[in-house]
Amino acid sequence: MRVRFDKNAEQTLEQNEIYIKDVQDINGKWKEIFKNDNPLHLEIGMGKGNFILNMAKEFPNINFIGMERNKTILAKAVKKIEKENIKNIRVMSNDAIELEEIFNENELDKIYLNFSDPWPKSKHYKRRLTYKDYLERYDYVLKQDALIEFKTDNQVLFEFTIMEICNTKRTMEYISLDLHNTNEFNIMTEYEEKFSKKGNRIYKLVWKNKR
Amino acid sequence: MRVRFDKNAEQTLEQNEIYIKDVQDINGKWKEIFKNDNPLHLEIGMGKGNFILNMAKEFPNINFIGMERNKTILAKAVKKIEKENIKNIRVMSNDAIELEEIFNENELDKIYLNFSDPWPKSKHYKRRLTYKDYLERYDYVLKQDALIEFKTDNQVLFEFTIMEICNTKRTMEYISLDLHNTNEFNIMTEYEEKFSKKGNRIYKLVWKNKR
Repeated sequence: MRVRFDKNAEQTLEQNEIYIKDVQDINGKWKEIFKNDNPLHLEIGMGKGNFILNMAKEFPNINFIGMERNKTILAKAVKKIEKENIKNIRVMSNDAIELEEIFNENELDKIYLNFSDPWPKSKHYKRRLTYKDYLERYDYVLKQDALIEFKTDNQVLFEFTIMEICNTKRTMEYISLDLHNTNEFNIMTEYEEKFSKKGNRIYKLVWKNKR
Repeated sequence: MRVRFDKNAEQTLEQNEIYIKDVQDINGKWKEIFKNDNPLHLEIGMGKGNFILNMAKEFPNINFIGMERNKTILAKAVKKIEKENIKNIRVMSNDAIELEEIFNENELDKIYLNFSDPWPKSKHYKRRLTYKDYLERYDYVLKQDALIEFKTDNQVLFEFTIMEICNTKRTMEYISLDLHNTNEFNIMTEYEEKFSKKGNRIYKLVWKNKR
């Protein structure tokens, strides 16, 4: 998603209490941050925040944490969330590669990967968020039997992900090759709304973390 | 596929030497039948035979065995194969449930499942040819590291098959969610030709037998 660089993004973020600037030693402290014992769900690559915002409204007894590396985009999301006065969201601009420093083992209850960068060139497959090294990071931070929910409209990324989940001996919980023609509960991302209108099929895969 | 019942089908089949009427004690004797040591490939549900016929022409050093329960359809296939004077095909009208009686352990080199009956009602899932009990029969008759190639245009059957392969801890070798838009070598079945013309996507999955 191309977005004009916002030189005030950093300032917007730092002025907002849902933004977590410094994640040092934050692992194990997430219940303190939210001031309750509710389950913790993480969205990696939250974009402009439609998904996390609507999920947080739909499930007020779940705490949602969003990661988005692009601060200009994250600042847009934060402004939107601020307007709605939502208390069960926190966001950060860190990278998924840092997951095991940001969360303790077993700390998370669910992870969402929505329309992740497909890295379509086959030589870049190790950068895809469903490459096996990432899957192992998710396993570490997730509780036993917790689920990872993945959506994309990218055929190459979906084929890659199916093979990666299967060949690392993980357990699939759900698959749809055409999510919008099912009766599944579904909160759309900005990207999903735009590209499903153009006629792209939306794919979904849910699997269990591996212990 | 609805086909008018042919009361002469039985006779057509019995007059043709590529038809194997009686499979009793045939296991372990396939090399004798073909009079060579070439690899043995099996297609389960060969329909009117376009796939097996064109494969047999393309790969004269592979022996192809076709199964089709519907004798009227099988008789059509046999007439077509007879005209072309192809020597590396044998067919039978047995059911896939009998596989372990028709073949010895490790006797086959590959299995093709093309556009199998989807049994779309969820209560009928045990009848699908990619249900785990069938997968175990394939494992038994196939050699170590042999492949099963599966094609369908049925979304429900493809989703079911992906889950079944993954959750029985088999290894996927290849997946395509849109086979006709790839450069893969592909021989089409009659059904595939008809339904891809109508715009249906063709799905393909290849997995390794499990030992």
